Amino acid sequence: MIRIYLAGPEVFLPDAAGIGAAKKELCRRHGLEGLFPLDNDLGDAGPGPFDLAARIFDLNRALIRSADVLIANMTPFRGPSMDVGTAFEVGFADALGRPVYGYANVEAPFLERVAGALPDGARRDESGRHRDAHGMEIEDFGLFENLMIGVPVCRHGPRVFSGSVPHAALYTDLAAFEACLRHVAERFGAGREQT
Amino acid sequence: MIRIYLAGPEVFLPDAAGIGAAKKELCRRHGLEGLFPLDNDLGDAGPGPFDLAARIFDLNRALIRSADVLIANMTPFRGPSMDVGTAFEVGFADALGRPVYGYANVEAPFLERVAGALPDGARRDESGRHRDAHGMEIEDFGLFENLMIGVPVCRHGPRVFSGSVPHAALYTDLAAFEACLRHVAERFGAGREQT
Repeated sequence: MIRIYLAGPEVFLPDAAGIGAAKKELCRRHGLEGLFPLDNDLGDAGPGPFDLAARIFDLNRALIRSADVLIANMTPFRGPSMDVGTAFEVGFADALGRPVYGYANVEAPFLERVAGALPDGARRDESGRHRDAHGMEIEDFGLFENLMIGVPVCRHGPRVFSGSVPHAALYTDLAAFEACLRHVAERFGAGREQT
Repeated sequence: MIRIYLAGPEVFLPDAAGIGAAKKELCRRHGLEGLFPLDNDLGDAGPGPFDLAARIFDLNRALIRSADVLIANMTPFRGPSMDVGTAFEVGFADALGRPVYGYANVEAPFLERVAGALPDGARRDESGRHRDAHGMEIEDFGLFENLMIGVPVCRHGPRVFSGSVPHAALYTDLAAFEACLRHVAERFGAGREQT
């Protein structure tokens, strides 16, 4: 069975285990096996906070290595961009040659999200490029995210699977995730949807 | 000569080429070779914006593969966390077994930065964990960044090399970068500092 590493910031939710179980159940219904970071048995990590962090890091890497595919939750997290831990994992999986797919619970593209998050909005320089208050260019490739993530997820999938959800459900709604999952299941011939 | 991939959001600066040249010159003085993403010759990328983005993506990955070490600029970028493109590159290099090092032009640790960026600050739940308005936990491992990046940069280096700089120099000051570079040069026996 195709193994899907479920990357995303939902590990930080109060009911992270519940959302992980729900995502894994959706994987099962689509003939796929979901792997959720919190499935790892931390065992005896060691005495200090760094030991625990390092153990989580090592186990997440091992879980990605054991997966065939990675699906990233690219919903903006504490700013206009996605969670940086998830971005690390997308890069890690990509280097291993694992196909990466993405979904998000917002629809606004990157340029619009970044401009909207700037206190004074974006300005255009003399060449028409959008820039922030530090003069830093805001990418405008029509991608959903920084090109280092926007490119691979649009090469493997047709697009970032996205949809708008109520603010309270920003990190719990699974409709866009399931749309992505359906594509992955079809792509890998994982069989018909089950109940 | 040890080849260092210089990852960071400074590629978005108006004078990105200038900061790249300055970083590479510092590498040279420390007996190292710096590789800057903008060094890539984009050639004839193709007609559309996606083609150009994909060409930049492919060339950046090839440049990381050709490097021995990655140094990441972890200065917070448009939010409390680092640039997600840089986070992707840290994950990519880590999967290839390349040592990764980090520096930042702010000193505040992760928890303090995230809490400071929240409109209503962080709250503590009944178990003492810090949470944001979505109830999402704010990591408190004493690391500089999300553990997927905070752990590897503190395993290879002694720490994230950080220092405070004036706001206007947030993405251009190179003192913390040079401290990191000095450590890497010593670690890899790159020879004495040159002028």
